[in-house]
Amino acid sequence: MYKVDLNSDLGESFGIYKIGCDEEVTKYVSSVNIACGYHGGDPIVMGKTLDLVKQNGIAAGAHPSYPDLMGFGRRNMDCTPAEIKAYVTYQLGALYAFAKQRGLTIQHVKPHGNLYNTIAVDEVRAMAVAEAVAEFDPSIILLGLAGSKSLEAGIKCGLKTASEVFADRAYNDNGTLVSRKLPGAVIHDKDEAISRTVKMIKEGVVISINGNAVPIKADSVCVHGDNPSAVEFVKNIREAFAAEGIMIAPIAEVIA
Amino acid sequence: MYKVDLNSDLGESFGIYKIGCDEEVTKYVSSVNIACGYHGGDPIVMGKTLDLVKQNGIAAGAHPSYPDLMGFGRRNMDCTPAEIKAYVTYQLGALYAFAKQRGLTIQHVKPHGNLYNTIAVDEVRAMAVAEAVAEFDPSIILLGLAGSKSLEAGIKCGLKTASEVFADRAYNDNGTLVSRKLPGAVIHDKDEAISRTVKMIKEGVVISINGNAVPIKADSVCVHGDNPSAVEFVKNIREAFAAEGIMIAPIAEVIA
Amino acid sequence: MYKVDLNSDLGESFGIYKIGCDEEVTKYVSSVNIACGYHGGDPIVMGKTLDLVKQNGIAAGAHPSYPDLMGFGRRNMDCTPAEIKAYVTYQLGALYAFAKQRGLTIQHVKPHGNLYNTIAVDEVRAMAVAEAVAEFDPSIILLGLAGSKSLEAGIKCGLKTASEVFADRAYNDNGTLVSRKLPGAVIHDKDEAISRTVKMIKEGVVISINGNAVPIKADSVCVHGDNPSAVEFVKNIREAFAAEGIMIAPIAEVIA
Amino acid sequence: MYKVDLNSDLGESFGIYKIGCDEEVTKYVSSVNIACGYHGGDPIVMGKTLDLVKQNGIAAGAHPSYPDLMGFGRRNMDCTPAEIKAYVTYQLGALYAFAKQRGLTIQHVKPHGNLYNTIAVDEVRAMAVAEAVAEFDPSIILLGLAGSKSLEAGIKCGLKTASEVFADRAYNDNGTLVSRKLPGAVIHDKDEAISRTVKMIKEGVVISINGNAVPIKADSVCVHGDNPSAVEFVKNIREAFAAEGIMIAPIAEVIA
Repeated sequence: MYKVDLNSDLGESFGIYKIGCDEEVTKYVSSVNIACGYHGGDPIVMGKTLDLVKQNGIAAGAHPSYPDLMGFGRRNMDCTPAEIKAYVTYQLGALYAFAKQRGLTIQHVKPHGNLYNTIAVDEVRAMAVAEAVAEFDPSIILLGLAGSKSLEAGIKCGLKTASEVFADRAYNDNGTLVSRKLPGAVIHDKDEAISRTVKMIKEGVVISINGNAVPIKADSVCVHGDNPSAVEFVKNIREAFAAEGIMIAPIAEVIA
Repeated sequence: MYKVDLNSDLGESFGIYKIGCDEEVTKYVSSVNIACGYHGGDPIVMGKTLDLVKQNGIAAGAHPSYPDLMGFGRRNMDCTPAEIKAYVTYQLGALYAFAKQRGLTIQHVKPHGNLYNTIAVDEVRAMAVAEAVAEFDPSIILLGLAGSKSLEAGIKCGLKTASEVFADRAYNDNGTLVSRKLPGAVIHDKDEAISRTVKMIKEGVVISINGNAVPIKADSVCVHGDNPSAVEFVKNIREAFAAEGIMIAPIAEVIA
Repeated sequence: MYKVDLNSDLGESFGIYKIGCDEEVTKYVSSVNIACGYHGGDPIVMGKTLDLVKQNGIAAGAHPSYPDLMGFGRRNMDCTPAEIKAYVTYQLGALYAFAKQRGLTIQHVKPHGNLYNTIAVDEVRAMAVAEAVAEFDPSIILLGLAGSKSLEAGIKCGLKTASEVFADRAYNDNGTLVSRKLPGAVIHDKDEAISRTVKMIKEGVVISINGNAVPIKADSVCVHGDNPSAVEFVKNIREAFAAEGIMIAPIAEVIA
Repeated sequence: MYKVDLNSDLGESFGIYKIGCDEEVTKYVSSVNIACGYHGGDPIVMGKTLDLVKQNGIAAGAHPSYPDLMGFGRRNMDCTPAEIKAYVTYQLGALYAFAKQRGLTIQHVKPHGNLYNTIAVDEVRAMAVAEAVAEFDPSIILLGLAGSKSLEAGIKCGLKTASEVFADRAYNDNGTLVSRKLPGAVIHDKDEAISRTVKMIKEGVVISINGNAVPIKADSVCVHGDNPSAVEFVKNIREAFAAEGIMIAPIAEVIA
């Protein structure tokens, strides 16, 4: 039996600003990454998002970011490792409090946006994130790009790690993502995206942009919930997985 | 044997902005109220402040505020009870994470500035704060103005509470503080401030601005660490307490 | 010939967060109130909003607020008059720079949200706003609630003022708005809203919630552009005005 | 007769946080660079700083930054040129409004911190800054690192530019500053710092860290006002300039 997690970024609304089909998408995923106020989310939104998590019986993770609401955490900020460690600690603790109030736990941490990309390749900053998590609670799982420095750092710090793959992104021969600035970076055909994902899960292989079979570990598949068509895709991928005998389960169960 | 806690607001620096003689004052107080980023403090400062707490073996509390860095949390903001509950939860959790990383616990919560004043008289908002604390961890003590709605709300929510008194402030006949806008609100004579405090601790009485003896409970005395003369006053009050047979101990021990 | 301005709040998106049908509504109104970054809006949004203003040949105004992005400027903040004056100056200047880069001028200032409501009744804070505008540029018009302290303050400071009315709100006998907390505060019937507005413009009268004819000055009608049905209402009101011989023109022209 | 401007960063306090000996330093410099709220400064501080400028009859400039109060604008943020242009416009307009209220003008713009360093070498971002200034008011002077891309961009946009030199910094053979991370980057000997500055002004030459004479243009010398010893240095440099026949005058006069 194959098992995989479906994760989605959630709780990224702020004040009167609403984004994401959070109520819909929580019906179909097994884990969610919840914004903690630095790139999106606010204390009211964080509580409501965890209410949704509880209602749907899915697993919650923190989605910490650089402090850049105006840029939604997507811009590089040259923060020191000490700053990154402190920012992750702050956001993780904040989310933890809302979870504890609801009798929930924090299953995992998945950094957001530019911080996610940075620690995929920057060992020192990856260690800063992993240390923040491990020193807070070593039973929390670090979710990061499959094959990245992020996961290596997690292992060094004694954390359990989970490898994330992207259904709709092309991969290089070395297992990294093709930059969005390059042609072919995004897989627009939904069926192709799904069949590639199935291959990653069942065979542990992805066909790179150069046509080569590249080994890849797929513990969790990132899906989006920004708009109705994204939610539709999540339903499609669930059905495909069912047909392929792939069970959907939260990260903790997948990597157990 | 009389016992009392000495508490001080701490960790209110932000980025390059430094305020407070934090290193000095942590040598002389038994509990500190640590800013959590909403009126002052930032993740780097929070970690460093808890390092100081650990070095000095004193007790840490959260000092949550309205989200108003520009006004240092001193301005009234008409937040709903749900917002206040969520803001306290967020800040308390954030501080908790830094404490847990250092093997420390959160002894108490003392709201900051205008929020402190508001919940001294506003039952509904006082309940919002108390619920946030109780639902996060019912073993955390709520520190509030002696005789205030804040403490009543804490008790209703099943929290232990501690009554705070001010050495340098005049009191009304009903036990509330004389508004700073009125003459005589602040006691400028240091010896008088100290002898008034001793009386509050030993006799449970304060002489009001109208000359009446008013009953008051003094579990914790608020002292300041903004400048060297404030720190000097903390040393003076310690010596006076020693001479009067008043032991200084963290809140948890005082109310035990 | 009757003349009236149609104004709408605009440019309230922030970062990746989009709100308002700005492109649509700018086709139908004569003046817009542009958020300046304190409750909504950011520098990128401000520039794009003024591009829309320029394309549509309509008039631009500043829409300054308390510094409360999380509360969208809708919560009371107990700012001092000096703070309010400084905040209005800051936001007005910021918008002015984007306007000047595009060869546009600032026609008017209309405070946002809670600040708007506060200065309708608080003379001292109303003076703070009016002074900020008058000392920056006395040719800028102050747009405020018809019959309010806001407009009195503008006149005292030598500003031209314009009286704003609301199509969909009930009025008290003294010309103030019925609080949204009370039943009947909002006129839900669109035809009734339009006929009431026509009466205000043509007869200078509004029927109060108690059934009395109350004198009112209507230089500008506030309309919304939050959603397609709001935009539809703006089209309806334009058609009704045309049928009634009411010309739509920017504030400056209406009060000339 | 030699002429040079002495400039200092000012108005970087925020809320209750005070930094800089602003009152002192305004007595000794000819131009000041005023923070505009993005890395420091707030609307109250901006007004008070311009009051000081007016009292002392010196010249005011804007000191715009990335939006990073927590990092004081010293961290690189990967903002797009469009974002940088909009941020500079926003901050420049905000300061302009306070200046206009006081009958003052904006003499110059000097970007702050990391933005200053970035546009010294990044042509595209340098153009973004220069365009923001030129499109707002082409009579404003752009103050930047001597020999940098920043000044080239200003010239391309039709702005007058002024070359800034640093008394206490070592220079490379190509006229750039030696990185603070390298030994010898900072000149600690005050007399040496002053004699180097005099040489830059009178001979247009600086001796590089490698001992070579490198041509340099010195329209304005950056001095600090963070602490009493920095202010003392400003007095020293004024006396030295007087003895050397170097007149101190605002940038506009120096480059006229």
